[in-house]
Amino acid sequence: MLRQMTIEQFAEALAAATPTPGGGSASAQAGAMAASLIQMMCDLTLGRETYRAHEAAVQAIRRRVEGLRKDLLALVDRDAQAYDAVVAALRLPKGTAAEKDARSAALGRANLFAIEAPMAIADACLSLMSMASELAEKGNVNAVSDVGTAALLAYAGLRGAVLSVRVNLKGVKDESSGARIRDRVRRLEVDSEKLREEALAATCFRTNGR
Amino acid sequence: MLRQMTIEQFAEALAAATPTPGGGSASAQAGAMAASLIQMMCDLTLGRETYRAHEAAVQAIRRRVEGLRKDLLALVDRDAQAYDAVVAALRLPKGTAAEKDARSAALGRANLFAIEAPMAIADACLSLMSMASELAEKGNVNAVSDVGTAALLAYAGLRGAVLSVRVNLKGVKDESSGARIRDRVRRLEVDSEKLREEALAATCFRTNGR
Repeated sequence: MLRQMTIEQFAEALAAATPTPGGGSASAQAGAMAASLIQMMCDLTLGRETYRAHEAAVQAIRRRVEGLRKDLLALVDRDAQAYDAVVAALRLPKGTAAEKDARSAALGRANLFAIEAPMAIADACLSLMSMASELAEKGNVNAVSDVGTAALLAYAGLRGAVLSVRVNLKGVKDESSGARIRDRVRRLEVDSEKLREEALAATCFRTNGR
Repeated sequence: MLRQMTIEQFAEALAAATPTPGGGSASAQAGAMAASLIQMMCDLTLGRETYRAHEAAVQAIRRRVEGLRKDLLALVDRDAQAYDAVVAALRLPKGTAAEKDARSAALGRANLFAIEAPMAIADACLSLMSMASELAEKGNVNAVSDVGTAALLAYAGLRGAVLSVRVNLKGVKDESSGARIRDRVRRLEVDSEKLREEALAATCFRTNGR
């Protein structure tokens, strides 16, 4: 499993000129790191007198974030498996009309599966971005650069995953499914830009580094 | 060493409420993944008839990118070590005037060291962003979403590392060093936004997903 590789081995595997792992798995891994940094920020904030006013809000984030980290680590592998299925379908024979039909049907199914994985990555990263943005305002000031980094990693994970979705969308023949996915993707793109700017502004304001 | 942890262990270590590893190490790891995806793109482009016009440009990137990946993997650990030195300096006694002076001097040195590591991460990520942006135009169309993801990961690595620099800048007492670093950081921020937009535009244009 990819998630049981060392950091160095995973970098080697990404660099190899093979179809997987690729941008989708890297996006999931970036999202998992974002979840980790958010969890650290929660644990450095909870129970401290200075941040007592935000205890409940931070608790609510803390309860969700560990699950998102686990989901994203699983998606590092799932994205690669889904794309491997696309590659396998592309390699099916297309000599006869029947073979062409079977290949096209297999490819359609594989493409939908290969869209679900990066879509799940993007959705998880959007949740993380909004958590990071909230914590950049409410969390322990000593970890504010870490949670700003979390927002940036989740942003990269989201937009990277969306690029995978867009590529696989080309293989989706059903027009209404295609339109529905395209709408969700556009909303994710717009929301991610807004949250990126909010998180960076809150982080820069509180690091006082300017 | 952090870079010999598995992906799962590294996520656990980032999540722990300990000073390191934190946002700097995560930024370096994101940069290393960007370098990997750029290397994959180069190897999927070189030697192909369709992309012959770009052979020399892609070769030039290929020659540099593997070194950047290794540098960034080393920086995953180096950033943590540098920040550990800051924490150690913060824990020095400050009872007497002499102790206060010694602590302040140690902290100044540790802070400069703790700025060098994320600055090196940011510089490497800026190079990666410009490679990714060029490859989004010139590289194999089948890997264009991967290289778009590389640009996003390098962007997150750069801006995340810059947040660490900004935090550690507060501990730098020497005004001219501080001003010089602040100028470099501002330039990095501006350049990274421009390159992010360029890379995303080139990627979206060539994935034709809209």
